[in-house]
Parts: sequence; C-alpha cells; structure tokens
Amino acid sequence: MGSKLESAMEGLIQVFHSYSSKEGDKYKLSKVELKNLLQGELSDFLAACKDPMVVEKIMSDLDENKDGEVDFQEFVILVSVLTVACNEFFVQGLNE
Amino acid sequence: MGSKLESAMEGLIQVFHSYSSKEGDKYKLSKVELKNLLQGELSDFLAACKDPMVVEKIMSDLDENKDGEVDFQEFVILVSVLTVACNEFFVQGLNE
Repeated sequence: MGSKLESAMEGLIQVFHSYSSKEGDKYKLSKVELKNLLQGELSDFLAACKDPMVVEKIMSDLDENKDGEVDFQEFVILVSVLTVACNEFFVQGLNE
Repeated sequence: MGSKLESAMEGLIQVFHSYSSKEGDKYKLSKVELKNLLQGELSDFLAACKDPMVVEKIMSDLDENKDGEVDFQEFVILVSVLTVACNEFFVQGLNE
C-alpha cells in the first residue's frame, strides 16, 4: 500500500475485521464486539475531541436496531460522523 | 495518537487539508485539488480494487455541483463509498 489515504482506508477495513471476527457472524460486529472496538480504539481520540456525547448518541441509535449487529457499511458511517465532528473541532481550533 | 482507528481518522483529516489548502478556500477541494488528490492518493488502491468506474461515477456526480468545491463531509462520503466497495471486494476474496 502506498499513500496515506490508502493506508487510512486499509486501516478501517483491518480494524473492523479484527473485532468483527471474534464471535458470531464474522463480518458483523455484535454489541459486545462494538463496545470492545469503541473502548479499544477510540478512548484517546474521544478525549482529544472533548465530545464524549458523539459516541453516546451513536450507541443509543444502534440500540434501536434490535439485532444488535453492525455491518461494515454502518461502521463506516459511524467513523465518518466521528471524523467530520473531529475535523470541525480541528478547523475551529485553527480559526481561534 | 494511539490506536489504528485513530490513526486512520487522523490520516483522512491530514490528507484532505494537505490538498484543500493549496488554492482558494483552504477548507474545500477545488476541482483541480480533487483531481490531484485522487491521482496522488488513490491510483494504486483503485488498481488493487480493479474497479476504476467507482471514481468515475463519483467524479461525474461531483461535476453536477456547479461550484466544483468539495468540503470535508463530501470527501468523507467519497472515501466511505470507496472503502465499502473495497471491503466487499476483500470479503468476496476471502469467500472464494
């Protein structure tokens, strides 16, 4: 893999599968796998963003899904929302 | 920055700004900046995905936007679509 963007995209795929393959459907995150992913991968980042509510909102949305399974596309949406929120925080910081 | 997921998210923000800051609005990609980003960051990845049409479809969608500007949120959507497509290719490969 070459560029920084390719590495980032490859990283998303690797992270998802490293947690989703632990139990049940190996291509979907169970609630336990999702919780482990958020705790294992996003604790520092959320602290840096100073907006812990972002994940709580997403978690409560995910709770409405009764099968409690998150596929890769839903995971990418979650990551997108978090990344856009953190980019806004980053740009805000540059403008202050 | 700690985890692999955090690095991936940070990478997306860094890549966008490294291209968007070149000319005009430094928080948006002009058409030239977008083209440079796609050529500079995604050429190998697209070859690996063996689906060059993905970007062509997105480019033609972006052409409909008359100001020719892509903000970070639109960029993340573009990356999400590409990453989901490449994940499907990856999973398909595992199942064959």
